[in-house]
Amino acid sequence: MSKSDSISMSVIRRLPRYYRFLSELDEQHVERISSNRLAQIMHVTASQVRQDLNCFGGFGQQGYGYSVGQLRLEIQNILGLNSRRPAVLIGAGNFGTAIAHHIDFEKLGFSLAGCFETDEGKIGSRLMDGIIIRNEAELESFCREQKIEAAFLCIPKQTAESVIGRLYRLGVRCYWNFSHYDIAAKYPDAIVENVHLNDTLMTLSYRITNSN
Amino acid sequence: MSKSDSISMSVIRRLPRYYRFLSELDEQHVERISSNRLAQIMHVTASQVRQDLNCFGGFGQQGYGYSVGQLRLEIQNILGLNSRRPAVLIGAGNFGTAIAHHIDFEKLGFSLAGCFETDEGKIGSRLMDGIIIRNEAELESFCREQKIEAAFLCIPKQTAESVIGRLYRLGVRCYWNFSHYDIAAKYPDAIVENVHLNDTLMTLSYRITNSN
Repeated sequence: MSKSDSISMSVIRRLPRYYRFLSELDEQHVERISSNRLAQIMHVTASQVRQDLNCFGGFGQQGYGYSVGQLRLEIQNILGLNSRRPAVLIGAGNFGTAIAHHIDFEKLGFSLAGCFETDEGKIGSRLMDGIIIRNEAELESFCREQKIEAAFLCIPKQTAESVIGRLYRLGVRCYWNFSHYDIAAKYPDAIVENVHLNDTLMTLSYRITNSN
Repeated sequence: MSKSDSISMSVIRRLPRYYRFLSELDEQHVERISSNRLAQIMHVTASQVRQDLNCFGGFGQQGYGYSVGQLRLEIQNILGLNSRRPAVLIGAGNFGTAIAHHIDFEKLGFSLAGCFETDEGKIGSRLMDGIIIRNEAELESFCREQKIEAAFLCIPKQTAESVIGRLYRLGVRCYWNFSHYDIAAKYPDAIVENVHLNDTLMTLSYRITNSN
């Protein structure tokens, strides 16, 4: 497997989609797929599919297409989904709680080790099986003990700055960020995926407003 | 204000970010901003900023930069955020409930008019102020009465197909889609913003796996 630093972010961002569609095909017991059919599902061209997968070493066989199961496993590997990187959830409000229940972290490369809150009414109660909501004061000792590598930030921008500073000083470099705090501006070596839900809804508003 | 059909999706997708940053500057009572400073906040080049805003008619004054308040209002207008398009939430599970509480729809161009569920244990209870969780059987009559334009889909892929079919037949063409159902493949004239939370977490996994 050849990996390259020069693979563009747009190729990388398509990989989870390949993985998602291949997982569905695998569940439907589809064994082989042509680059044409895969392209159709992905809403890209067949040459784009071949080019994307060539970045990671190919996998296709001329005239035979791709083996669904094998390609799925290769991409799973490339994405690092077999890891169980220990992570903490910061914020157990409505949204953080929903994320904890909604996302199957273990299938996505992470393992949820703990959850932190500042709301004293929630501290000590159960977020989900095996996860008790902890006081943010325990963040340092917990992260050191559990060798935490990633944080999922489900807190408002105003409270994000200080807790991210503490996580960064603990060596946590990997952030799934639902707050609007710009982590990369302050910590250029952090690995950050921002999810701005509001932005996608505004884009929807734009598109419907300008569709007539 | 000149609007053009030829504005690329990548420019459009930056507009909510401009709006977000300008709103923050406005709250901090910043009155003017140069394209250089705006570019820095946006992590793009100054010429990109000028080019982006020129797509919508300019707004800047040579040597004076942009008026924060005015530019914010112009972009608010372009994004259609002053509308209150009536929308329904489909799915009042953990995730749908969190979305309903987390998102300020009225500031983003929409108004949440109703919420639908199939889980009989939830039907009849209160989602939030003014919104009772309704039986999906009432979908047709409610959407017709309330002239629903948009649907926010917080349901699994397996149950998405049938309810989207019903919404589409009712004339609903605008979808904020958290399910993994590919609406655009079946209904090419639908306006869809997909949010694949899993994909962003997989991208994070890839980036940390390949960062050493």
